[in-house]
Amino acid sequence: MTVVSLPEERWVAELADLDGVELVCWDMSSAPPRDDIEVVVPPYMGVSERFARFAEVPKLRAVQLVTAGFETALPYLPDGVVLANGRGIHDTSTAELAVGLAIAAQRGIPQAVRAQEHGEWQRMAGLPSLADRHALIIGYGSIGAQIARRLEPMEVSITAVASTARGGDDIVDAVHGVDELPELLPDHDVVFLILPLTDATRHLVDAAFLARMPRNSLLVNVARGGVVDTDALVEACRAGHVRAALDVTDPEPLPEDHPLWTTEGALITPHVGGATTAFEPRALRFLRTALAGYVSDGTLRTAVATGAK
Amino acid sequence: MTVVSLPEERWVAELADLDGVELVCWDMSSAPPRDDIEVVVPPYMGVSERFARFAEVPKLRAVQLVTAGFETALPYLPDGVVLANGRGIHDTSTAELAVGLAIAAQRGIPQAVRAQEHGEWQRMAGLPSLADRHALIIGYGSIGAQIARRLEPMEVSITAVASTARGGDDIVDAVHGVDELPELLPDHDVVFLILPLTDATRHLVDAAFLARMPRNSLLVNVARGGVVDTDALVEACRAGHVRAALDVTDPEPLPEDHPLWTTEGALITPHVGGATTAFEPRALRFLRTALAGYVSDGTLRTAVATGAK
Repeated sequence: MTVVSLPEERWVAELADLDGVELVCWDMSSAPPRDDIEVVVPPYMGVSERFARFAEVPKLRAVQLVTAGFETALPYLPDGVVLANGRGIHDTSTAELAVGLAIAAQRGIPQAVRAQEHGEWQRMAGLPSLADRHALIIGYGSIGAQIARRLEPMEVSITAVASTARGGDDIVDAVHGVDELPELLPDHDVVFLILPLTDATRHLVDAAFLARMPRNSLLVNVARGGVVDTDALVEACRAGHVRAALDVTDPEPLPEDHPLWTTEGALITPHVGGATTAFEPRALRFLRTALAGYVSDGTLRTAVATGAK
Repeated sequence: MTVVSLPEERWVAELADLDGVELVCWDMSSAPPRDDIEVVVPPYMGVSERFARFAEVPKLRAVQLVTAGFETALPYLPDGVVLANGRGIHDTSTAELAVGLAIAAQRGIPQAVRAQEHGEWQRMAGLPSLADRHALIIGYGSIGAQIARRLEPMEVSITAVASTARGGDDIVDAVHGVDELPELLPDHDVVFLILPLTDATRHLVDAAFLARMPRNSLLVNVARGGVVDTDALVEACRAGHVRAALDVTDPEPLPEDHPLWTTEGALITPHVGGATTAFEPRALRFLRTALAGYVSDGTLRTAVATGAK
């Protein structure tokens, strides 16, 4: 029997019928409840500091995250322990928010909400639709592809970018390499960021990047705040050059007095890309498949790293 | 040569190459510029009162609107004059806003905008995604079908309703009749209104309708304000029973002191469903086809009424 810790009692109950695993509930807020845990599934929200407890799990062989991002777990990963991310769990919820943020920003929903506060029926004719825009999706993994799928019926042209160029799929003819960005940016007026945060992607969106975006174009960030140089973005928005719809920021949470809050043309949601009712059923389906796979061959199908410290 | 008035000089220039028509610019704000106009294309925005000038066009045979709604033109239509609506022109823009309003309302975008005003990073976990919802589209004409097309990749189940039951299409198995609404409403948690305003549909959404919607469900109105009994909606929202995302209201514009503005759970945009950059290219493509058809056989393909007064 493989001993697996899950962060919620409800999950333990839901997955109780899985063969070959013994499930224990552990949310990592205190010491592990037993010393034979082999696979840890950490809780979903706000737990980076708890990753230090990996070191307290003597038999730990694998960590199965339910987040897409994994950069905060990496520094705590013990030698030889496999880290797998929750690739796919958040596709639905995050892609939905990305498209919703883009429509909201294009169609004046934030202005309407503010006008509503004053009982003001504000004429807003001639705003740019999302339709007819040229969208650039930077990071064409599973969430990026789901953004594309949602944009497809919206009369948006779609260009995909990933770390290296490759062939396309049923939506895009080709996936461009990130090195092509300088040439691509001037032709795209809605840019979606949904790439992992790594040393290579930190501050990918800097002053030079923003300067190559067309005037009045929109940057939608549902990746990680650190992909964007926040100071450069504030400046570009204030200059009226670009607008931004951000579910993630750097720093995060954004302090009360941060200039980004009051930057003209910036719409900010508090990192709610994945935290919806869509999460739990998809997380449970994912864990069912992932843990069954682990029992059968000892691997996690979404492994992204192995500890080497 | 058929003399056709268009409301914008730019449109006259864009359509100048049409065979068999002589185009004149007339926005109906003053008397007609000549007495041989046969087809009038009224301006798009805010012109109901100008429709009285149809009576000043002696050779008038047809009115081609660029709006989907036509209820405000009907009372002014001279005897024997054909009225055609702009069916299709606004599909893209209105369907886009409908989906954007639904995502915004489900995902807390209005709350985030208000929190942003105070520099507040507000935790909003567990909000209902649009995904996994059961959507009811009431009014399954060309815009309703475009809403469905946009919802299809969003993991939403879709039920369509029209004035009478009929067969389905590539998205829905069947189109239900409006008489089935009492049975359908309790099973649907996002209701889109995109039906015409007629004597039969005025106040279709009344207290009884709202009571049959599930608790915490969402009403999205991109049709006409008069389809909803506003007082009943305010009451249902205040009771916490439903939420609403409204691009149209009754009355409209909504007066500054109207209780709907401050109703908890109501998101209001100021009738901007069609008024975007998506409008003009689609209006021009539509008019090109419509006027060519009129020249060829004397009919307008989107005729909806003939004057009889």
